[in-house]
Amino acid sequence: MAKSRYEYVKQFELDDSALPGTWMVVRIDGRGFHGFTDMHKFEKPNDLRAIHLMNRAALEVVGNIRDIIIAYGQSDEYSFVLPASSTLYSRRISKITSTIVSLFASNYTMHWAEYFPDTKLLVPPCFDARLVCYPTQRILRDYLSWRQADCHINNLYNTTFWAIVHSGKSEQEAEEKLRGTFSKDKNEILYSDFNINYNTLDAVYRKGSVIIRQETEVKSVSQKSGEEVIRLKRLPTVLHDDIIGNEFWKKHPELLVSSQEYE
Amino acid sequence: MAKSRYEYVKQFELDDSALPGTWMVVRIDGRGFHGFTDMHKFEKPNDLRAIHLMNRAALEVVGNIRDIIIAYGQSDEYSFVLPASSTLYSRRISKITSTIVSLFASNYTMHWAEYFPDTKLLVPPCFDARLVCYPTQRILRDYLSWRQADCHINNLYNTTFWAIVHSGKSEQEAEEKLRGTFSKDKNEILYSDFNINYNTLDAVYRKGSVIIRQETEVKSVSQKSGEEVIRLKRLPTVLHDDIIGNEFWKKHPELLVSSQEYE
Amino acid sequence: MAKSRYEYVKQFELDDSALPGTWMVVRIDGRGFHGFTDMHKFEKPNDLRAIHLMNRAALEVVGNIRDIIIAYGQSDEYSFVLPASSTLYSRRISKITSTIVSLFASNYTMHWAEYFPDTKLLVPPCFDARLVCYPTQRILRDYLSWRQADCHINNLYNTTFWAIVHSGKSEQEAEEKLRGTFSKDKNEILYSDFNINYNTLDAVYRKGSVIIRQETEVKSVSQKSGEEVIRLKRLPTVLHDDIIGNEFWKKHPELLVSSQEYE
Amino acid sequence: MAKSRYEYVKQFELDDSALPGTWMVVRIDGRGFHGFTDMHKFEKPNDLRAIHLMNRAALEVVGNIRDIIIAYGQSDEYSFVLPASSTLYSRRISKITSTIVSLFASNYTMHWAEYFPDTKLLVPPCFDARLVCYPTQRILRDYLSWRQADCHINNLYNTTFWAIVHSGKSEQEAEEKLRGTFSKDKNEILYSDFNINYNTLDAVYRKGSVIIRQETEVKSVSQKSGEEVIRLKRLPTVLHDDIIGNEFWKKHPELLVSSQEYE
Repeated sequence: MAKSRYEYVKQFELDDSALPGTWMVVRIDGRGFHGFTDMHKFEKPNDLRAIHLMNRAALEVVGNIRDIIIAYGQSDEYSFVLPASSTLYSRRISKITSTIVSLFASNYTMHWAEYFPDTKLLVPPCFDARLVCYPTQRILRDYLSWRQADCHINNLYNTTFWAIVHSGKSEQEAEEKLRGTFSKDKNEILYSDFNINYNTLDAVYRKGSVIIRQETEVKSVSQKSGEEVIRLKRLPTVLHDDIIGNEFWKKHPELLVSSQEYE
Repeated sequence: MAKSRYEYVKQFELDDSALPGTWMVVRIDGRGFHGFTDMHKFEKPNDLRAIHLMNRAALEVVGNIRDIIIAYGQSDEYSFVLPASSTLYSRRISKITSTIVSLFASNYTMHWAEYFPDTKLLVPPCFDARLVCYPTQRILRDYLSWRQADCHINNLYNTTFWAIVHSGKSEQEAEEKLRGTFSKDKNEILYSDFNINYNTLDAVYRKGSVIIRQETEVKSVSQKSGEEVIRLKRLPTVLHDDIIGNEFWKKHPELLVSSQEYE
Repeated sequence: MAKSRYEYVKQFELDDSALPGTWMVVRIDGRGFHGFTDMHKFEKPNDLRAIHLMNRAALEVVGNIRDIIIAYGQSDEYSFVLPASSTLYSRRISKITSTIVSLFASNYTMHWAEYFPDTKLLVPPCFDARLVCYPTQRILRDYLSWRQADCHINNLYNTTFWAIVHSGKSEQEAEEKLRGTFSKDKNEILYSDFNINYNTLDAVYRKGSVIIRQETEVKSVSQKSGEEVIRLKRLPTVLHDDIIGNEFWKKHPELLVSSQEYE
Repeated sequence: MAKSRYEYVKQFELDDSALPGTWMVVRIDGRGFHGFTDMHKFEKPNDLRAIHLMNRAALEVVGNIRDIIIAYGQSDEYSFVLPASSTLYSRRISKITSTIVSLFASNYTMHWAEYFPDTKLLVPPCFDARLVCYPTQRILRDYLSWRQADCHINNLYNTTFWAIVHSGKSEQEAEEKLRGTFSKDKNEILYSDFNINYNTLDAVYRKGSVIIRQETEVKSVSQKSGEEVIRLKRLPTVLHDDIIGNEFWKKHPELLVSSQEYE
């Protein structure tokens, strides 16, 4: 069988390397998640089981792909950040993007039952993904700020919307009531009508989830002595911190140092 | 909160459209599948359960993405073909590639237990993916021939290799025996030493799996009369045909017609 | 001096190969040519000296870059076609595009005085260029038809516009008179008001210029006998044929044959 | 005439924008300049007329394209730098590259006779060009250092090589004598054999040419008073400074400030 006769088709695979020296962000987004959340009866405005499942899938991705130094998730999206110095898969865009999104999808599916023990997974989840390059730390931080600001804006809206609906109004009525309102108006509605102080809601809802590697105490049993020992390991950890201000970055200076060689 | 201040980062998302008028092939490949098959004790040279699971995941992808007109799979890889006329997701490479690979990964995971009822899924499967454009039908057919020729070459090798090993030799001995042999030598070993006529082995192993949409009789119960009716629907179907020769393409002329307008 | 310390910057030069198996068209366009033609007092609607200079520059480009099989020019633009099988400069887009446009610009400048003996070149001409890939012969022919149709539309408009202006009207009056008119209206104005039968105008204006290599009789003096000999050579030649219909392509079947291997 | 029928071919023109927020460098290189310099009898190791002509063409390019903030040239190459904040031609790579290279080629041709009054231009010069993106100031400076280090290495070699040749040796003998030598060896040969102190040679040869915009006194005649007035204008100016060390950049802080907003 003439294998070589067909081998020429390999030359159609063009190089798709990301520009060296830039931060690479892979953002995955749920496809058709409006229907997916309805079908599986997610709680509104936020379903903590779903958030924890998203975080679990992301933790597995970060644990698997060592080059990822920070990840940020909210709603049905997650962003994974590779430093400017990363040479993962020779920086081939398709390879990096597809590996991350497929790992996320299979982990989400595999761990579903742990987070939704009473809800059968009816259809497989689907995520799309894209890789975007950011030339500097400043722009990378602005990207992450953009996603966290988006989390805030959407969560404030959704919290107010569902408070109105849960109080007995129709979804249409809630939509009309919120049309054209500013943040302070929604805060006021929440406080006056529902006695909710938005700023005291759990940070997981207001800030989304940040994953970085942190020194963590890990217990294990010594093979020699049979005694329990505690060691420090750097493990992917979920936080709900503000990442727009400077405080977070001052507290974790190692996050941005990795690509500073060229800046 | 100044949302707009960060919105500028969206401009870093560059257009990645595939050239119009070209056939798009998304090929997914198992990542680290050597370890994955060992861990889950796949039978050698071929595990029919694993082949059926791959085909099931691919059938779901083809059912979900209507633009796919043919798919071809073997070993831990699958190729999905979109016609030159397709405008799926405005032909954005990342969007198409990530959607297909994530659907494949979540379906593989979700349907695992149906095909491996006695084997627990220990780690989530991971696939990478790439999209390649082929300008003409001729080159597209050569691409598919390349993959099916690859299936033949690998399967002949593996069948002979594992026949030797199962007869009591070490893997190293089998490897040495096959070094430098041609197809006819392997056919001869199979026939003389193991009484196996390679060409009579099941086509699923020798040819891999082809998915196209075929007229299929679907039974349903009429809501009016309550009687069972049979209707013809075009459903994704797995075949194990030869796709290198012309016969297959003559039998399914609709496969190549879809982009002929420009040729 | 530490040369190697800086060599790493070479890795930022990403591959920009054109998809194999596709026709490559480099189209150059005059930049700021409205001002350029005013400054050098080009005749309206067409200046034959300028057309001949454009053609001369294009002939030199075609003579220099052997892979170009056909070129088409009109107004201040020229398209150069490389066949799908071309491997010029490993199909690197920047290399091909920049070589062609710089050759065109320097030839235009160098030969100016031959075509404009009485007009000093006041500013250097500037052209931009882009390379576009077309997957099939059919689309390539449609591209060339698009440019020749554009030539026709613009030339009919310009011929009518300048006839009106030369008859004593202002440019604004001419513009108003032509607003919303169709081809047949302009033909009618030309015929009724100016006694011009558009279809009998010289083809160089109505069809633009096509360059292909044609068998040409070339006279030379034999070094042996000292006698004049005539030999046939394939030389780049300017035609003003219709390239939209099939006749031209039937007459020159070698033009499309070069990439047919894959179609 | 059915114009619209062909218009669809425009969709094959894919977007080729450079990544925002990165420094863009267009480097042009002489094509076939070895033959070009022989044909026009350039002096060796350096022909000052040729250097001045290269600089003249580059000055015209910088004067024409306002976004260029610095250019660097040596031998038959020139690099033009656009700041990370530039939005010239929407950062389209082909448009920027082709405009710069065609302006350079036509200026080189047009001004030839001013610099080579006694040498007829026999063939049009040709340059290729590429655009490379550099994410940070640090990498941009390393790029420019790379080119100036290259200038030094080549010029030291050529100076020594031609000194040997001009002393009566063959080119082959000179080549053999220099094989495997280090910088200090060549400096020593120059000093011992030819009494040349390399470091005192004119900087134009050792450092190449840098173009930046500098405050320049420009004389003009006042239209009101008829008197001569002197005004300061920022004009493209050729320098032969070292651009590897920090001094140059400290002296011209405006060069790097333009893109600092994001760093």
